[in-house]
Amino acid sequence: MEITIQQAAQRLRQMDRVAILCHRSPDGDTLGSGYALCRALRALGRQAKVLCQDPIPQKLAYLAAGLPQEDFVEEHVVSVDVADEALLGSNLSAYQGQIELAIDHHSGHRPFAGEICLCPDYAAACEILYEILLAMEVPLTPDIASCLYTGLATDTGCFKYPNVTPRTHLAAAALIQAGCDFKGINKVMFDTTSLAALQMEQRVLSGLELYEFGKIALITVTREMMAQTGLGESDLDGITALPRKIEGVQVGVTLKEREDGEYKVSLRTTEPVDASAVCAQFGGGGHARAAGCSFRQSPAQFKPALLKALREALAPR
Amino acid sequence: MEITIQQAAQRLRQMDRVAILCHRSPDGDTLGSGYALCRALRALGRQAKVLCQDPIPQKLAYLAAGLPQEDFVEEHVVSVDVADEALLGSNLSAYQGQIELAIDHHSGHRPFAGEICLCPDYAAACEILYEILLAMEVPLTPDIASCLYTGLATDTGCFKYPNVTPRTHLAAAALIQAGCDFKGINKVMFDTTSLAALQMEQRVLSGLELYEFGKIALITVTREMMAQTGLGESDLDGITALPRKIEGVQVGVTLKEREDGEYKVSLRTTEPVDASAVCAQFGGGGHARAAGCSFRQSPAQFKPALLKALREALAPR
Repeated sequence: MEITIQQAAQRLRQMDRVAILCHRSPDGDTLGSGYALCRALRALGRQAKVLCQDPIPQKLAYLAAGLPQEDFVEEHVVSVDVADEALLGSNLSAYQGQIELAIDHHSGHRPFAGEICLCPDYAAACEILYEILLAMEVPLTPDIASCLYTGLATDTGCFKYPNVTPRTHLAAAALIQAGCDFKGINKVMFDTTSLAALQMEQRVLSGLELYEFGKIALITVTREMMAQTGLGESDLDGITALPRKIEGVQVGVTLKEREDGEYKVSLRTTEPVDASAVCAQFGGGGHARAAGCSFRQSPAQFKPALLKALREALAPR
Repeated sequence: MEITIQQAAQRLRQMDRVAILCHRSPDGDTLGSGYALCRALRALGRQAKVLCQDPIPQKLAYLAAGLPQEDFVEEHVVSVDVADEALLGSNLSAYQGQIELAIDHHSGHRPFAGEICLCPDYAAACEILYEILLAMEVPLTPDIASCLYTGLATDTGCFKYPNVTPRTHLAAAALIQAGCDFKGINKVMFDTTSLAALQMEQRVLSGLELYEFGKIALITVTREMMAQTGLGESDLDGITALPRKIEGVQVGVTLKEREDGEYKVSLRTTEPVDASAVCAQFGGGGHARAAGCSFRQSPAQFKPALLKALREALAPR
């Protein structure tokens, strides 16, 4: 059953011994939401803990700083920023069917919880949590504000993406007012890059391919490049965004060689090219602007078919 | 004489036939301020024009779209985002000593106008203009809102830099509410890069030098690289920011070869390294986090002295 932000706040105020679940491969929004809620519940004198299948990425460690993990048998289970129960990951699969309240902002949310506080027009789960915490009448400490700001900023590319609304900026204003460390957070999240990532960028750009008068840009990340730079597949998100950023490019294609010899293809498009429809032709899927598929052949074998599909998507008959 | 935002709004409401001056090498903030004010004055039925020594960069052309240049003999002269009269450039030098009102946010503003509306704690001149236009009771059309949003976003790296305050986000919220095209503006300003800029990045990174266990990163932009990529000195702002972005780097150094054989050095530092103090040792200057100086010798000759000064700045005795 769907409930409002006010109702979610009421439910949470009545809970004690709460397990808060984040999605696997955690990002700033799921962890920011989780630790903000955990800190809020503890400020109300309740026991609360954040659970995630995967460890906290090092650059997000500050979210949990000064918050000793509490050990208790949970009475209530809440999920934050989890669009699908499967995204909890296998380590948390025991919680499937046990989740009392899901707080989420994904328009493709697949209901799994007893009650759902779903706000698909919110840019981040942290934007929902901000309003929930206000409604819970929890004082916004600088630590809580930093957790919430983290999700707000990371899910919007620092207020750059089309999902931003006036409400997003109003929340940011209040969080800065409450003393969040936005300067430190933004420096780490948006103004720092590893030498390895720059070296990877250099290597993939030396193999940049342009098609259709520069409307399609294609890069290839080989296992050799990963070995040379020490980067793994999970470090390649920034690289995948690169080709579409080039002026005039409408379709950015990234081919990533996997350990098993398969190639994973990531498409990033601008309107009106439907990345999801192109990937569906090859057994993949995703969103209109970002989608993926896989090939068992070598690039020399599958590239012609992929490029043909992309040309047709660019100039539909 | 310094005046308040309210007083500036009163003065502007009484003006007709207004020339609005921007600084040379114009950016989103000076042009955004200029065209927002011009559109506001015309909405009040006044004659107004924006003047700048240099042409509008192509990606900022939308600021002036649908606004035919008016030709008239000005009775009032106002400057926006101009920190020093010299920054008007030689083509507008005839206006020196003629400026009635200066609206600016630079803490190093050198007074030159009859009246100054100076708000050094505002992130952008457009943040001041937003409040002035409100006080003038000019309706915020989508076009005006787009002009103001442009300066707000470009002077803050899309709300990323430490100059952001709650007030900045509140203004952004109101401008999005008023219908500014923040999606299109952010895509062009922050998510688009030219192929030439990427190629330049590739070239300079292949010559990246690291010193002091990676605390100092140095890149060199030669005339040959500019010729190969077709980029000029004015296109190198992004490159100059690159070395300091590398994880662990406290001092980013960019050497740019000039046509006359001189080398321009740009320093970007993190706290506590004072870029301005280092550059002052070599006859240059600037701000604490960003400063510059020039050398007539070759890099092989001046680099040892520059690196010595940087090492001392990193570990002061």
